[in-house]
Amino acid sequence: MISLATDFGSPYPAAMKGVIRRETDAELVDIAHDLPRGDPRAAAFWLRFVLPEFPPAVHCAVVDPGVGTDRAAIVVRAGRHAIVAPDNGLAMPPARALAAATGDGMDDFDVFEIDAADPASATFHGRDVFAPMAATVRAKAWDSAVGVDDDALASLLDLTPLSPTDGYVDLSLPEPTVERDAAGEPATIEGEVLVVDGFGNAITNVPGGLVRDFDRLLVNDIGPVPVVRTFGAVEVGARLVTVGSHGFLECDVNDGRGADAFDLAPGAAVRFVPA
Amino acid sequence: MISLATDFGSPYPAAMKGVIRRETDAELVDIAHDLPRGDPRAAAFWLRFVLPEFPPAVHCAVVDPGVGTDRAAIVVRAGRHAIVAPDNGLAMPPARALAAATGDGMDDFDVFEIDAADPASATFHGRDVFAPMAATVRAKAWDSAVGVDDDALASLLDLTPLSPTDGYVDLSLPEPTVERDAAGEPATIEGEVLVVDGFGNAITNVPGGLVRDFDRLLVNDIGPVPVVRTFGAVEVGARLVTVGSHGFLECDVNDGRGADAFDLAPGAAVRFVPA
Amino acid sequence: MISLATDFGSPYPAAMKGVIRRETDAELVDIAHDLPRGDPRAAAFWLRFVLPEFPPAVHCAVVDPGVGTDRAAIVVRAGRHAIVAPDNGLAMPPARALAAATGDGMDDFDVFEIDAADPASATFHGRDVFAPMAATVRAKAWDSAVGVDDDALASLLDLTPLSPTDGYVDLSLPEPTVERDAAGEPATIEGEVLVVDGFGNAITNVPGGLVRDFDRLLVNDIGPVPVVRTFGAVEVGARLVTVGSHGFLECDVNDGRGADAFDLAPGAAVRFVPA
Repeated sequence: MISLATDFGSPYPAAMKGVIRRETDAELVDIAHDLPRGDPRAAAFWLRFVLPEFPPAVHCAVVDPGVGTDRAAIVVRAGRHAIVAPDNGLAMPPARALAAATGDGMDDFDVFEIDAADPASATFHGRDVFAPMAATVRAKAWDSAVGVDDDALASLLDLTPLSPTDGYVDLSLPEPTVERDAAGEPATIEGEVLVVDGFGNAITNVPGGLVRDFDRLLVNDIGPVPVVRTFGAVEVGARLVTVGSHGFLECDVNDGRGADAFDLAPGAAVRFVPA
Repeated sequence: MISLATDFGSPYPAAMKGVIRRETDAELVDIAHDLPRGDPRAAAFWLRFVLPEFPPAVHCAVVDPGVGTDRAAIVVRAGRHAIVAPDNGLAMPPARALAAATGDGMDDFDVFEIDAADPASATFHGRDVFAPMAATVRAKAWDSAVGVDDDALASLLDLTPLSPTDGYVDLSLPEPTVERDAAGEPATIEGEVLVVDGFGNAITNVPGGLVRDFDRLLVNDIGPVPVVRTFGAVEVGARLVTVGSHGFLECDVNDGRGADAFDLAPGAAVRFVPA
Repeated sequence: MISLATDFGSPYPAAMKGVIRRETDAELVDIAHDLPRGDPRAAAFWLRFVLPEFPPAVHCAVVDPGVGTDRAAIVVRAGRHAIVAPDNGLAMPPARALAAATGDGMDDFDVFEIDAADPASATFHGRDVFAPMAATVRAKAWDSAVGVDDDALASLLDLTPLSPTDGYVDLSLPEPTVERDAAGEPATIEGEVLVVDGFGNAITNVPGGLVRDFDRLLVNDIGPVPVVRTFGAVEVGARLVTVGSHGFLECDVNDGRGADAFDLAPGAAVRFVPA
């Protein structure tokens, strides 16, 4: 299987599929083609959430504001998965999640640089660099019993793995800042909105475990807002905070758009205070 | 084949695909992931329209405003198809259409409750309840020669079928009200807009057969509007009424948006009078 | 493989997939379902760009403002590909590109008319005419070693190929007008915007080769605007002109919408003058 995730909209990803289909008949699965445009961090968030649901696969992930500049292109092996991506950090959070889910430990992944000399275009490396490399990895470094074959991958790419100090771009999602009271309980949590999903839910970087013991929170001084398990626990149109399916706090409205109700956009600071 | 239909947008359905792919390599086909949000009746309309075009398959259909509440989750067998869905009625109109198309009669379907104790999240049962169950039905209650195997399905789910009185939620699309003249011809038809499609066509619940003998109609006092076979029968920009490919009256504009031109939204009342 | 390209949005293409799946289990690949609505020329542009990336396949391409009128339906063979489409010209530019890419010469394609008497609807020939024909071509006129079998296709359709004079609709993308200076260099290039993509890039009909020797251009008197290889060559928010991955000049903004910055919409005239 080769999964495809981009911010390209339509119909550019179809050109990538054609290129892949010329080399391999591996199944193609679309992850998303409307990832937040030009935002590698948002792509990293979504891919960290989605890719670990899959069995071993090759993932072609292209959110690439630096296309055509001298940024490198990479293949990351994590567990028996491979991620083919621009070297802007987007692959690192999902690679860590895949490595952790595989039981290898979150830092047990390898990064290889792709030799992409002279692609046909300077603006569509999805078609000219990443899709061909994803197809090649699947065709030549794949063992159908287990997934990506790391020896074959290393020899295919004719490279030893890079380390961060050798020059690949690392990226971590930001951690919230927690101020605790005398009893060690969180008193103020300063986080950030990572993405707003299509429902308008404002998804933050605050792990749900931090608010396990609280029934209500002030959210940037709005509220108190109930901390509930699901949308239907409040009236239609009412604000809520919940721990989303990714494990992080979301600021939501039942049958409405939390991002609007809380005035939150990607990158916005968000402060939670027990109430 | 497993079809997927949701109101989730992107990239949530990809997580469902990953979950399914861990259990079965059955083909995945997207029906739509932009079904009208939180509207089981609109989902029912679209699935009744689309699913009967398919050969026997497992359909995972999730429009679920009650996610995480105590609403049940169900599997419906209709003909050799199975629909895995929340118990909010959305599965019933397509199940009746599939049963009718199969020649079993529109009421010859079975409803089974899914035992979904303790899903991983309270907000994403698409990933945690419905996708796994769709994969399991396909993997364990499927006969490749004919489709879903009802005995295997019943024993898989360890349940006898429910009846409406046992507690599943039924849903029927509303019927229009017809006032007839002395000759028995429709004089006034009071219907409702069920959905507005992406072209802006306002699709009603009025069966096309009711206006078979009329050339022109008043639509909520707008018109007379010609009743025509297709868009190109009127000028670009002009209003028309036609019987859509689903068999119901639509209020349209050639190369424009009928919903705007007739001021109609989903749920709006619409009155047709021969003119 | 059967590819699908329409302007139908959602969920209409799923009905087409069901119809196809009743006849063949050939792989289904979505090209796009948000092609510019009712614009066969824009569809032609995109399909000319995308289809040559694919190995031989059957392509079902439906942008069809004349649905239900007396416009014909056709199958075009180009190389070992087949395009099933309404007879409004949209298939011709991609057919020429496929024929050229196959090495047969851009005019070596055949056009056959489909006998589509009495389809079930007058508004959804995607479901009732084109999808069934694509499935039939794939099922009955396909050689898995090479692609579409032209003898089988001709006998399947029981027709000899048409020529333009026999009545199929031809369509060519417009050519720009070039005024040259005494040295033979382009002094003024009058072109047209063909499409605006999802990034907001305004893609013109001006081949990139025409501006090979220029560093800066006036674009409809805006500028001078740098002619660069890629977005990252200018500041975020700055205008640029580049040769896109399709080979034509685009008017873009780095991390912004060129169509807005240059006030260009599909069909707009665009004049490039070296500066």
